[in-house]
Amino acid sequence: MKKQLLNLLIGIIAFISLTSSSFAETTMSEEGQYIFNSLAFYIGGVLVAFMAAGFCMLESGLVTTKSVSTIAAKNIGKFAIASLIFFLFGYNLAYGIPEGGFMGSFSIWSDKSTVGVGYSDSSDWFFQTMFVCATVSIVSGAVAERIKIWPFFVFAVAMAGIIYPISMGWQWGGGWLSTAGFSDFAGSTIVHACGGAAALAGVIVLGARAGRFTSKGGKRVMVPFAASSIPLTTLGTFLLWFGWFGFNGFSQLAMGTFDDVNAISKIAVNTHLAGAAGTVVGAAVSRLIGGKTDVIMMLNGALAGLVAITAEPLTPSPMLAIFIGAIGSIIMYFGTKMLENLGLDDVVGAIPVHMFAGIFGTLVVPLSNGDTSFGTQVIGTVSVVAFSFILSYVVFSALKSTIGLRISKEAEKLGTDKAEIGVVAYSIRD
Amino acid sequence: MKKQLLNLLIGIIAFISLTSSSFAETTMSEEGQYIFNSLAFYIGGVLVAFMAAGFCMLESGLVTTKSVSTIAAKNIGKFAIASLIFFLFGYNLAYGIPEGGFMGSFSIWSDKSTVGVGYSDSSDWFFQTMFVCATVSIVSGAVAERIKIWPFFVFAVAMAGIIYPISMGWQWGGGWLSTAGFSDFAGSTIVHACGGAAALAGVIVLGARAGRFTSKGGKRVMVPFAASSIPLTTLGTFLLWFGWFGFNGFSQLAMGTFDDVNAISKIAVNTHLAGAAGTVVGAAVSRLIGGKTDVIMMLNGALAGLVAITAEPLTPSPMLAIFIGAIGSIIMYFGTKMLENLGLDDVVGAIPVHMFAGIFGTLVVPLSNGDTSFGTQVIGTVSVVAFSFILSYVVFSALKSTIGLRISKEAEKLGTDKAEIGVVAYSIRD
Amino acid sequence: MKKQLLNLLIGIIAFISLTSSSFAETTMSEEGQYIFNSLAFYIGGVLVAFMAAGFCMLESGLVTTKSVSTIAAKNIGKFAIASLIFFLFGYNLAYGIPEGGFMGSFSIWSDKSTVGVGYSDSSDWFFQTMFVCATVSIVSGAVAERIKIWPFFVFAVAMAGIIYPISMGWQWGGGWLSTAGFSDFAGSTIVHACGGAAALAGVIVLGARAGRFTSKGGKRVMVPFAASSIPLTTLGTFLLWFGWFGFNGFSQLAMGTFDDVNAISKIAVNTHLAGAAGTVVGAAVSRLIGGKTDVIMMLNGALAGLVAITAEPLTPSPMLAIFIGAIGSIIMYFGTKMLENLGLDDVVGAIPVHMFAGIFGTLVVPLSNGDTSFGTQVIGTVSVVAFSFILSYVVFSALKSTIGLRISKEAEKLGTDKAEIGVVAYSIRD
Repeated sequence: MKKQLLNLLIGIIAFISLTSSSFAETTMSEEGQYIFNSLAFYIGGVLVAFMAAGFCMLESGLVTTKSVSTIAAKNIGKFAIASLIFFLFGYNLAYGIPEGGFMGSFSIWSDKSTVGVGYSDSSDWFFQTMFVCATVSIVSGAVAERIKIWPFFVFAVAMAGIIYPISMGWQWGGGWLSTAGFSDFAGSTIVHACGGAAALAGVIVLGARAGRFTSKGGKRVMVPFAASSIPLTTLGTFLLWFGWFGFNGFSQLAMGTFDDVNAISKIAVNTHLAGAAGTVVGAAVSRLIGGKTDVIMMLNGALAGLVAITAEPLTPSPMLAIFIGAIGSIIMYFGTKMLENLGLDDVVGAIPVHMFAGIFGTLVVPLSNGDTSFGTQVIGTVSVVAFSFILSYVVFSALKSTIGLRISKEAEKLGTDKAEIGVVAYSIRD
Repeated sequence: MKKQLLNLLIGIIAFISLTSSSFAETTMSEEGQYIFNSLAFYIGGVLVAFMAAGFCMLESGLVTTKSVSTIAAKNIGKFAIASLIFFLFGYNLAYGIPEGGFMGSFSIWSDKSTVGVGYSDSSDWFFQTMFVCATVSIVSGAVAERIKIWPFFVFAVAMAGIIYPISMGWQWGGGWLSTAGFSDFAGSTIVHACGGAAALAGVIVLGARAGRFTSKGGKRVMVPFAASSIPLTTLGTFLLWFGWFGFNGFSQLAMGTFDDVNAISKIAVNTHLAGAAGTVVGAAVSRLIGGKTDVIMMLNGALAGLVAITAEPLTPSPMLAIFIGAIGSIIMYFGTKMLENLGLDDVVGAIPVHMFAGIFGTLVVPLSNGDTSFGTQVIGTVSVVAFSFILSYVVFSALKSTIGLRISKEAEKLGTDKAEIGVVAYSIRD
Repeated sequence: MKKQLLNLLIGIIAFISLTSSSFAETTMSEEGQYIFNSLAFYIGGVLVAFMAAGFCMLESGLVTTKSVSTIAAKNIGKFAIASLIFFLFGYNLAYGIPEGGFMGSFSIWSDKSTVGVGYSDSSDWFFQTMFVCATVSIVSGAVAERIKIWPFFVFAVAMAGIIYPISMGWQWGGGWLSTAGFSDFAGSTIVHACGGAAALAGVIVLGARAGRFTSKGGKRVMVPFAASSIPLTTLGTFLLWFGWFGFNGFSQLAMGTFDDVNAISKIAVNTHLAGAAGTVVGAAVSRLIGGKTDVIMMLNGALAGLVAITAEPLTPSPMLAIFIGAIGSIIMYFGTKMLENLGLDDVVGAIPVHMFAGIFGTLVVPLSNGDTSFGTQVIGTVSVVAFSFILSYVVFSALKSTIGLRISKEAEKLGTDKAEIGVVAYSIRD
């Protein structure tokens, strides 16, 4: 009997062995998952990094010829500054937050990778850092051509080190918004509306560029300023679009299982279709209302569609994604006109693209995601936008009344490239 | 005896367990394969997406200064439209084809991913969509500077929704060409010659740009039109080249085994060397025949080399790949001259690069791939080229005689940027 | 007894089966490792390929308007030539080296992939080829605007086929420097200082551009030459920066284990932070010393930071990486001034960026890597720099005294675009 029991035991062990080894043949190993997850952050980080070049080209193309070197300097500078600050304290301010809490701690990030975490800490930092760079980028275009470069860099420190990390931690760090049930998959609000709200604060505190608005029969009229290079603006938009495949897709934060890679793929489809719909709507609306097929409205339409789908790129059907992208583009179009009517000078259309379309995208998450409610989405959006706007307003105002925020009238007439950078952007003779 | 039999059975089970678990240590799990395959489509899709920016920069640089905003608008617009249409019915028209058949069905694509398929459906759609975008891109450069933007968009619908999907389905959807033994790995014919043939139809129906050809002593002479920006054209060519690493490499359609990843890697080597050979030959031929080392012939030489290797980038030795790329470049050079002599105005050289080099590349597949025959390659190439040319000709002609295809003489003199887009491409003062 | 023994044996086998199958669940399969490693080379190769476009844009933007087509032609041409030569004999000259030896053999590369190697040979060739392209790129910018295009291509053959492969084989092929204990992870010396030393030789042999230096009160004074396009230079810098994520990260040469992917991720973080520090220091130093926030010093500062961290991007703490990047940028700044004072005309700053910062980065490896010594680092750096400088000097001098190296005075006045390429770079009217 003992022997038979022993044999039975051996049989069971053998059976388990067999089963578990078959299992090993059909599912991913723990190490494999770790590699896939880390690789997802790495590829995602590189793709989102391309957005830094995208913003730079888009803004370089849309400003007038005398501020192009300046905007280039601001873009590479802010890419650097935001990364350093996010390392020095931004990351831990966001992710060191207690569950349901308000903010983490001011401390230097360090890699604490262990097998159990499921991915390399460094790859996660790399990916997240590119998001803070994107957030700060949203501001630089809006306030272009009249903000001094070093005060702008100081603002970049505040934005990348405090404003974005705190509100981002509320949601992605597991803070109070996350506990409250708010949902923002890749950052329609956390990144885009947050950046757009800061841009709005900057535009208000700075005022419009000299000569941007004039009065005609007692009515405010916008004077068109010629964009320096439409092809560079288009290139920038393409780079941003491609970056979004990393921005949204790898915000799944994992790739090591069937479900994760399926999610990443579905997100790519929805993201792409929303951008496509935004583009077509931008073309159609500008043609129908303005008479011409305005390429800038197509480009900003693409971006507005991409921003709008960012809050929930996974659960919508592709058809709903198209719809969300299309409406995002329409909101951008009328938002642009609204800002012009209000006398607000947003050089690149960052506020309508990122803030208005971002808010819209966040509010319609419940259309496809049953775990969310419209009320919670409103709370989250209002909280982040208000927080970002108010703090940015305070920082811009403080800079204005201390070291100064706006270049002198002479410098503005001369152009910031000559006044601040000392390098003319173009020297082309044909 | 029974016990011994039982023990033997247990032993066998244990042995199988051991074997199969060793097996699990050396080969990839099913889930791992699924992730790798989906990731291949994802990375491939992103790389081919870069080709959309590549075409846009190449075309923006080669058109004259007064049509740059228009070509940018066309490129971003067609990227969007082709994607939407391919989602709405193009994909199923191609891949819903019965085995050996002629075409699939007009129906919306949907994700039907299951473990058994071996990859995420969405990642496949994403990858394939970037191919249709590339095909339509080939046309936009050739017909630049005189086609109206909205009729072009209507053509993009026809090309992305019907012309390309049907002939592509013949081969890649498992239709009659595939059954007949035709071979076109990544699309020298299916994508490039198809797009080039459509471009040829457009160029014929539209006629040349005003002033492009003049008569000198009773002979037709081409008037040089200055390209607006050679650096952007060069950037575009680089982006296309890099995109080709996705275009050809991930047309292996799988990455989850030794053999697949080896194939992808070999394809990268052959693709790169063919492009390199095309570049050098473009430099040498233009220097020897024209006296100057024409950068445009180097760039189009690179592309012609890449197009030529696309039909079979896996089986040739690297040396043969170099040879194929070199000949592709020579064909492009003389093809360009031939079109000029015929009075055909292909603004960017799309027809010699994509159609002529594409046909050549398809016909020489049997040099390295023993499963193919020259006869079948001819049948496939002629079928696809004729189908694309005839349908495109019909669509362009129908547009011409209804809503109109070509801008007015006044608009052409003014430039399409001012006439149709309302945004001047460059505003540069130094 | 026998039966019990048999049962025990079966039990042991079953236990091993169980253990080994559990093992299979937590570690990566051999095939999976092979795929991951090959994919690492593939992604890395594509990213480093982007550096070719980056160099092209950076150089196109920094040269004057009359040499832009030429620099574009040189960049695409050298990308092609270097790849072909590295295939024909460069690769085997480097990697066919006997252990501790001086050089390999002149023979064509071929794919010898087997499972045991651990990765696809083709993917390795693809990755390594992009490094030789980068090395040659470093030279083209420095000698721009006065070197004839075909003699430059001949030099590219020598550089990609002999100079770089031999000295590179000393280290990465397992030659004498590697045996001696020299350490250069991704090529601060092997790639950057090597390329920079060749550039220095070219700049000396060629002499300065006409009118670059003038005499004022008996003192040599540099005449500022206007860069043609700052936005393209900025784009180029961004592309180089992103390429560095492949250049450094995937120089880990493997991705199929926990340790490898952790290393890749840490390298990404250190690389990024060093570039960021270089950028900020470039801004601060140029503002403090020159009065203006010079965007070119920011861009070259970023590159110098990236070059400096390349010799050892893995072992430093992020804080040390920031420090290394910052010092690299300072060295670049004063190195640039030094070259100007010496009357050396390095058009894009390639020598201070790549050679000076590269040497610095290599010498400080012992700060974080205990397996290295300062003495060996000096030996390695001096050997490679001297070898590259001397051979390049010989090749440039030989070209000068045979087919000629420098364009004629008339051609230089006219500009190389008109004289050699026959295509004007820009034709922009607004």
